Amino acid sequence: MAFCNITGRHLNSLVKTRSSAVVSSAEAKWNVAKLDVDSILKEVKFNSDGLVPAIAQQFDSGEVLMMAWMSTESIVETLKSRRAVFFSRSRKKLWRKGDTSGQYQHVHDFKLDCDGDTVLLTVDQLGVACHTGRRSCFYLAVRDDGLEEILPVVIDPDELYS
Amino acid sequence: MAFCNITGRHLNSLVKTRSSAVVSSAEAKWNVAKLDVDSILKEVKFNSDGLVPAIAQQFDSGEVLMMAWMSTESIVETLKSRRAVFFSRSRKKLWRKGDTSGQYQHVHDFKLDCDGDTVLLTVDQLGVACHTGRRSCFYLAVRDDGLEEILPVVIDPDELYS
Repeated sequence: MAFCNITGRHLNSLVKTRSSAVVSSAEAKWNVAKLDVDSILKEVKFNSDGLVPAIAQQFDSGEVLMMAWMSTESIVETLKSRRAVFFSRSRKKLWRKGDTSGQYQHVHDFKLDCDGDTVLLTVDQLGVACHTGRRSCFYLAVRDDGLEEILPVVIDPDELYS
Repeated sequence: MAFCNITGRHLNSLVKTRSSAVVSSAEAKWNVAKLDVDSILKEVKFNSDGLVPAIAQQFDSGEVLMMAWMSTESIVETLKSRRAVFFSRSRKKLWRKGDTSGQYQHVHDFKLDCDGDTVLLTVDQLGVACHTGRRSCFYLAVRDDGLEEILPVVIDPDELYS
């Protein structure tokens, strides 16, 4: 049992910090004209390829939709346009999500973690996030004795990329 | 405006795939004794360091708590113990989250994305996920003209690591 070492102080902290829902309707406010992009980029720790992982989460339901990578340029464009722009490692170029598939992500919030090495975008995902036509890329889950597909295909991938 | 190119078929898909809340009370069921771990590991695309990024999300609220890295060994131990075990890149060894801080993560579900290169753990986080004493590591957010701290310190870090 994983929780066997819990002491009083940790139980107290558990009570104090019990999670609240992430569901929210408001977009975070920032002023594109006044945004000090350099001060934000200074806090981001890019890897040796100049990229940082970025998680996209649906703003109201809390679904984790996908994980992709961002470059300096994609962060700047995302902040200025409020549309999720990643960097495709396979195509080695900016990936404006939705340009091919139509499945855009409108950015509600842009967060950075304590180490500055991961971005969290809360977004409003139009349609589906996954190239397989599923709402989220995380559709394989451990069940019974192995991995199972737990999400349906809601848009035919042939339709997404036609 | 990001959504200006939306066509009828995409609006239709939006309606059909409108997100539902991730909040859930049930733990995913798997049979530790029968688990075909090799078949799961075969689907994971580890990077050149033998690691895969893993997102930890609070199972009921949907909060994204942190992102860390997993090795083959940490995946196997996580699946068998249902406690989140990562691989510390700085210490170059298994990181059984909670061993030092007491802030364990009990694993509710283990998911893999379409490319097999990111893991999503839904967990029940005891206390706080962040070493700074905040509930989530994602406490820096873009507001007004730059980054602001948006989450309070709920446990003194000195207390976490004493």
